[in-house]
Amino acid sequence: MTQLELAKQGALSPQMKHVAQQESVSEETIQQYVAEGTIVIPANVNHSSLVPRGIGKGLTVKVNANIGTSSDYGSIDSELEKLRLTIQFGADAVMDLSTGGDISSIRQTIVAASTLPVGTVPIYQAGIEAIERHGAIVNMSIDDLFAAIEQQAEEGVDFMTVHCGVTQATIARLKRQRRVTDIVSRGGAFLVGWMLHNDQENPLYEYYDRLLDLARRFDVTLSLGDGMRPGSLADATDRAQVEELIVLGELVDRARDAGVQAMVEGPGHVPLDQITTNVQLEKSLCHGAPFYVLGPLVTDVAAGYDHITAAIGGAIAAASGADFLCYVTPAEHLSLPDAEDVKIGVIASRIAAHAADIARGTKRAAEWDRKMSVARKNLDWESQAALSLDPEKVRLVHNKYASAGPACSMCGDYCAMALVEKYLGISATSC
Amino acid sequence: MTQLELAKQGALSPQMKHVAQQESVSEETIQQYVAEGTIVIPANVNHSSLVPRGIGKGLTVKVNANIGTSSDYGSIDSELEKLRLTIQFGADAVMDLSTGGDISSIRQTIVAASTLPVGTVPIYQAGIEAIERHGAIVNMSIDDLFAAIEQQAEEGVDFMTVHCGVTQATIARLKRQRRVTDIVSRGGAFLVGWMLHNDQENPLYEYYDRLLDLARRFDVTLSLGDGMRPGSLADATDRAQVEELIVLGELVDRARDAGVQAMVEGPGHVPLDQITTNVQLEKSLCHGAPFYVLGPLVTDVAAGYDHITAAIGGAIAAASGADFLCYVTPAEHLSLPDAEDVKIGVIASRIAAHAADIARGTKRAAEWDRKMSVARKNLDWESQAALSLDPEKVRLVHNKYASAGPACSMCGDYCAMALVEKYLGISATSC
Repeated sequence: MTQLELAKQGALSPQMKHVAQQESVSEETIQQYVAEGTIVIPANVNHSSLVPRGIGKGLTVKVNANIGTSSDYGSIDSELEKLRLTIQFGADAVMDLSTGGDISSIRQTIVAASTLPVGTVPIYQAGIEAIERHGAIVNMSIDDLFAAIEQQAEEGVDFMTVHCGVTQATIARLKRQRRVTDIVSRGGAFLVGWMLHNDQENPLYEYYDRLLDLARRFDVTLSLGDGMRPGSLADATDRAQVEELIVLGELVDRARDAGVQAMVEGPGHVPLDQITTNVQLEKSLCHGAPFYVLGPLVTDVAAGYDHITAAIGGAIAAASGADFLCYVTPAEHLSLPDAEDVKIGVIASRIAAHAADIARGTKRAAEWDRKMSVARKNLDWESQAALSLDPEKVRLVHNKYASAGPACSMCGDYCAMALVEKYLGISATSC
Repeated sequence: MTQLELAKQGALSPQMKHVAQQESVSEETIQQYVAEGTIVIPANVNHSSLVPRGIGKGLTVKVNANIGTSSDYGSIDSELEKLRLTIQFGADAVMDLSTGGDISSIRQTIVAASTLPVGTVPIYQAGIEAIERHGAIVNMSIDDLFAAIEQQAEEGVDFMTVHCGVTQATIARLKRQRRVTDIVSRGGAFLVGWMLHNDQENPLYEYYDRLLDLARRFDVTLSLGDGMRPGSLADATDRAQVEELIVLGELVDRARDAGVQAMVEGPGHVPLDQITTNVQLEKSLCHGAPFYVLGPLVTDVAAGYDHITAAIGGAIAAASGADFLCYVTPAEHLSLPDAEDVKIGVIASRIAAHAADIARGTKRAAEWDRKMSVARKNLDWESQAALSLDPEKVRLVHNKYASAGPACSMCGDYCAMALVEKYLGISATSC
């Protein structure tokens, strides 16, 4: 039985208990929210190395890191190193988006090695195999697509991005208006190409019940993908995007009825002042399903620094109610991220998630900041490093220039903390 | 006459005309807002190399970069290199916060070299000279302080941080409550030490008219400093901070009456959900004076990455109405920033300012993003680099891995842009 089915029946799974303890939330609340579908616990019955995480209502904001090879670059070793960094710097989930090399073997290795929930986009595998076997993605058969999903589910993938909301009606809406960047979702583009070439409905929509059957068997959480997510600010919150979101909301209901856990993916590129609107729309149209956003990026012009652009958007989204942030690395829009990009991407996204946790009133989150500030007030550099997101970097930067006194080289002899301590006579140690 | 006096009399200065053209705002509007004090144009009559900028109502959000030596490190050469990067990467102002070496000579060199408005915190010079001459900051005479201000004003400094709102009443409020990090403003700490040791009122408050006289003579814009700005989330929006802000609001009125341009400085460390409140408070209490925020940092725990923390807070503050963002570098809280830190700090702050400009409805800002997205859709890599904030970095990251096709190494053969172009048959070139 899935976590959702168990919760509906009033049972409390080990995964629910674990999440309750991890989040300092009562077991009853976790069970209730899993039962109503506002919390998901991606936990494939075949993923034996998993330490489960909850995503959704009343929980801390979670962070996902995308890793994986491209058709041009990457190897099993490079991707395992990225997985290691992803775990070390505190991500809560990892998606293997490999599209190059032996992608089945890479995925199996990552699932086996990962204590984090692992997500995939199965149409990548199905599409690439269709190119290898039949010469083009558009020659993929519907059975090919479901075979890839079944294989990955059986291997222990915890959540899958499935672009079920890209329908012929959505494409018609897209065509009736103008867009600057049309479709930027790879999975969405695979499907749209297939649908237009074959003049058929999206098989993930038409045969959604078949998908639900597979997902239920292994308790795969569906991550309902946004094939119409805007790839530029100019396209944000447009008719194609909102049409798809309405469809995804309907599919959330059907998943819940079938005992399948489901969350919903969101944009993308969104002007800062439309982010809260996007979150409220999702929560309303999708009946409180956990919202998993990619970014959002608050400008298109910051290539090379899009981890910062995404941290701005992600913090605002999460403070407005988004539950799960997909990281963006400095390599976004430019190249496959390397290990250092992955590390920086995770840290930037963690900053956004943590800032939102504080804004959402999570006591443990605020307590962490208080401890750091007490250490700062006391000029206790080792505690500051230990409490930081990247202790090694803190030590490195602090020690870059030696300082004559107890303060850092920024203020040197004229440290406000030291001055106030002397004249105001208030010590932070008592706080 | 100052810009404010000219505007009040209905005159249109070359500086106002320049700002009107730069911002695509009518000359009448600029004149009206300068006259009412909701726009400032920091332009010391003796700063001959200046290309003026406007800060405030209806204008694009501006970015300041702090440079300068510390008692431990830095030289005239290192600071000039930072100034060069500050200008290259698009900051709108620079503050010389030097506290080490021959600080007068460093400042004179920076003012002469800078096309950007230059700001300072004159009490640094006064305090350091007091240590050299009299053994301690607390032995600084009131004339010493005003002499430093006069010297800097005469040399062409365009705006000065003056912590006039740190009064005995503010300190009393601070003492009556607990704070985690007390005072983290260096200038504020210098003054509080002096006030407590000498048992006197803040001379910048008591002799504010003397300050206004000096400022008016050279048209120095007062940047009313927040000595009580919170240095940790736990201290944000507390009584000491708001008490000081009320005093600063009164001092804004007095500055305007005296024909002196004034803006107000703000925090600091602020939880994400309190940022808009802080901006609205300033706008209300200070009668629409331009708001210059340091950050705000939305968490205390991200040392080493505080440019990201500040970009999140800065974007939200500016979208809520803040006018001027002081950058924060990755070295914040840890060491004196080096040239690379300065570059990254400027870019992070520019991302925040630009994202806010779009949210505030600035057409030119959105147009820039549209151009970038059209180039992206067309896989036109050279235009993407040229339109980005850091063209060199875009080329570097894009070329890190060669890609077999026209796309980048992230998606390789499976680029959504290329796929959609093929199957959907919509070309972005027509957008």
